[in-house]
Amino acid sequence: MENFTFLSPTKIIFGKDTELTVGEEIKSLLSQEYVPAGAIHPSSLTLRRTGKSPLRFKILLHYGGGSIKKTGLYNKIKKSLKEQGISAIELPGVKPNPRVSLIREGIKLCRKEKINFILAVGGGSVIDSAKTIAIGVPYKNDVWDFFTRKAEIKKTLPVGVVLTIPAAGSEASNSSVITNEDGFYKWGINSDLIRPKFAILNPEISYTLPTYQTSCGISDILAHLIERYFSPVENVDLTDRLIEGTFKSVIDNALIIKKNPKNYAARAEIMWASTLAHNGLLNTGRNIGDWASHRIEHELSAIYDIAHGAGLAIIIPAWMKYVYKENPKKFTQFAKRIWDIKEKSPIKATLKGIDKLENFYKKLNLPTSLSQAKIPEDCIQEMAKKCVQRGPVGQFKVLEKDDVLEILKLAK
Amino acid sequence: MENFTFLSPTKIIFGKDTELTVGEEIKSLLSQEYVPAGAIHPSSLTLRRTGKSPLRFKILLHYGGGSIKKTGLYNKIKKSLKEQGISAIELPGVKPNPRVSLIREGIKLCRKEKINFILAVGGGSVIDSAKTIAIGVPYKNDVWDFFTRKAEIKKTLPVGVVLTIPAAGSEASNSSVITNEDGFYKWGINSDLIRPKFAILNPEISYTLPTYQTSCGISDILAHLIERYFSPVENVDLTDRLIEGTFKSVIDNALIIKKNPKNYAARAEIMWASTLAHNGLLNTGRNIGDWASHRIEHELSAIYDIAHGAGLAIIIPAWMKYVYKENPKKFTQFAKRIWDIKEKSPIKATLKGIDKLENFYKKLNLPTSLSQAKIPEDCIQEMAKKCVQRGPVGQFKVLEKDDVLEILKLAK
Repeated sequence: MENFTFLSPTKIIFGKDTELTVGEEIKSLLSQEYVPAGAIHPSSLTLRRTGKSPLRFKILLHYGGGSIKKTGLYNKIKKSLKEQGISAIELPGVKPNPRVSLIREGIKLCRKEKINFILAVGGGSVIDSAKTIAIGVPYKNDVWDFFTRKAEIKKTLPVGVVLTIPAAGSEASNSSVITNEDGFYKWGINSDLIRPKFAILNPEISYTLPTYQTSCGISDILAHLIERYFSPVENVDLTDRLIEGTFKSVIDNALIIKKNPKNYAARAEIMWASTLAHNGLLNTGRNIGDWASHRIEHELSAIYDIAHGAGLAIIIPAWMKYVYKENPKKFTQFAKRIWDIKEKSPIKATLKGIDKLENFYKKLNLPTSLSQAKIPEDCIQEMAKKCVQRGPVGQFKVLEKDDVLEILKLAK
Repeated sequence: MENFTFLSPTKIIFGKDTELTVGEEIKSLLSQEYVPAGAIHPSSLTLRRTGKSPLRFKILLHYGGGSIKKTGLYNKIKKSLKEQGISAIELPGVKPNPRVSLIREGIKLCRKEKINFILAVGGGSVIDSAKTIAIGVPYKNDVWDFFTRKAEIKKTLPVGVVLTIPAAGSEASNSSVITNEDGFYKWGINSDLIRPKFAILNPEISYTLPTYQTSCGISDILAHLIERYFSPVENVDLTDRLIEGTFKSVIDNALIIKKNPKNYAARAEIMWASTLAHNGLLNTGRNIGDWASHRIEHELSAIYDIAHGAGLAIIIPAWMKYVYKENPKKFTQFAKRIWDIKEKSPIKATLKGIDKLENFYKKLNLPTSLSQAKIPEDCIQEMAKKCVQRGPVGQFKVLEKDDVLEILKLAK
């Protein structure tokens, strides 16, 4: 087991009607005499009393395309904020692959309005955008500096989350991935300081997600588990067991949701799994995962209009078929413990395990080949080239351009 | 799944030589501009500069009977503190079942010496004692008020931990159990505020534990998992899976340690499992466990000189035999998923599962009956009576005096 540090200070507020407590939660957080290290103390910004009136706070309410208005979530949140005397400046319009241009706009807005807290209502894109605005406000130069490693994250506004899509796991993670339209770079940052202060997770909110989006989210969760499971570092028994348990729970409950999208228990299991799959717990003891599939998938979604989770369902089985010989023992463990394969031959067990995963994606109506997703073959050369532009990808097996090409061919 | 909140802000610093960073960790924590909510800001106590000298801090170093001096851990810690300009006032002498009298002494000492941080070096007893001193310092009346519920925990000094025994899980938990010699009450408190700020876990430190103490610690970890697994609340699939995975990892690695006490990987798995078994993660979604076995065991160790983990190895199999009919499905799951029992009949599978657990305790040379522990039969009436003095115990099955008596008889 490798040395590690693990810090996961996000307060998880989980369950029915928990979104109604958002105002209370923010007020309690901002009224505290001290806020966590690295965070800006609210009093240094806009904590102010007007005469004898109670403390009043002004926050940024950050969200996406407005589906929260259709579902009624927006009104619930506004009501909860109002009840606690919290006013909200709004910045909607976050898109999948959140853009640095909107983030720059958010930073200016926060400074102008003297905002001391950002509430992200949405999925991974909205949360990542909020995290990035939060580090940009106290930083005097351009926020993209953090992504080019010109600047180090030292301060942040506090961020809170009301989650709408169990998928990316950003609600308790230390990372944010942002797209810079100037050159279409999609880069990430990591820091424990950007972990949200709280995350409100009400599984009922996910009832209204379209079936396909639910499936893509589930695929994303599984991918986070797979990328960590197939680490190049020696086995860590406990971490493996925790990943396996989470994996089994996700696949069982995904099939329940498929039959009954309003099964609360199953929605709850998936939502909690999405957070645990990406908050760092399942990295403990070996720190690094593989992440080649994410890198290859990114090339797909950069060119074609395909959801991240769908792209992963195409790439991961192909990646597995290409790399399993690196560590057949680990793949046999995957097949036996997760898919209950009894096959004695390690190779046969492995292939059956991969087959089971592919079938699972099919059950969720996700594409498992480029052709199913209507992605033409003639682009795979270009995708492979772009994928390794900044050097080889992957850790379980380090992949050069030709390796990526082979994987894309296996995905045809 | 029940609604829950989960907050686990303890920074885990895990691995070889991590105890050498303790001074750095404390300095970094106390130098921060802001400290977590509810904690007292160091500057309000003794943060002071003398002329141009660097910041100096004064902490309380709290430990037990001095085994840390024999193993060299004490010297390493003192050296690390000194290097960071941290002076330590010492309060050794914590005993198993930590006493409120020593805690009162610690509180006085902290006030007199204007101490702003407590470092616990030891196992559960030392950590619980440190947590309790920490809430006592800023409280104007007697610290026992928190245990009688006369007072509510609102402030605390920050506490850090260097763990020596993987067992109790107090290093990241929200609880503390203290004994009041005046009447021999052994009562507990719970608050997220008392979770340690950091926990340093170096598995190598556990190499020198006597075999029996290692086994007792493992039994304690398993008990924390069992008490949570057999909850009266509806199943939570993910939480069950995580408990099962942790359980399997503990039993596998315990047997490796039995053969080779200096197997680093196995010691590491056990140490990390001890923390995860008790930091609240494995409560998520159902909040309550059973805890009857702990309550009954407490009567054993209150009268006889028996280690907590050994007492649990006696009580738990008897408890299981008595209560399994309450929810045979859950016990069958325990047998099948953890012990790989193939038996089709639920009852037979259950009994085989319990048998496997009992055999596991035997492999660790733990007693599994009162007679093996040389506890005479004639006290079981009294123990049963005392156990339910404050009302029935247990949640999976609520136990009255006669039930406890039957369990003790099964444990003969």
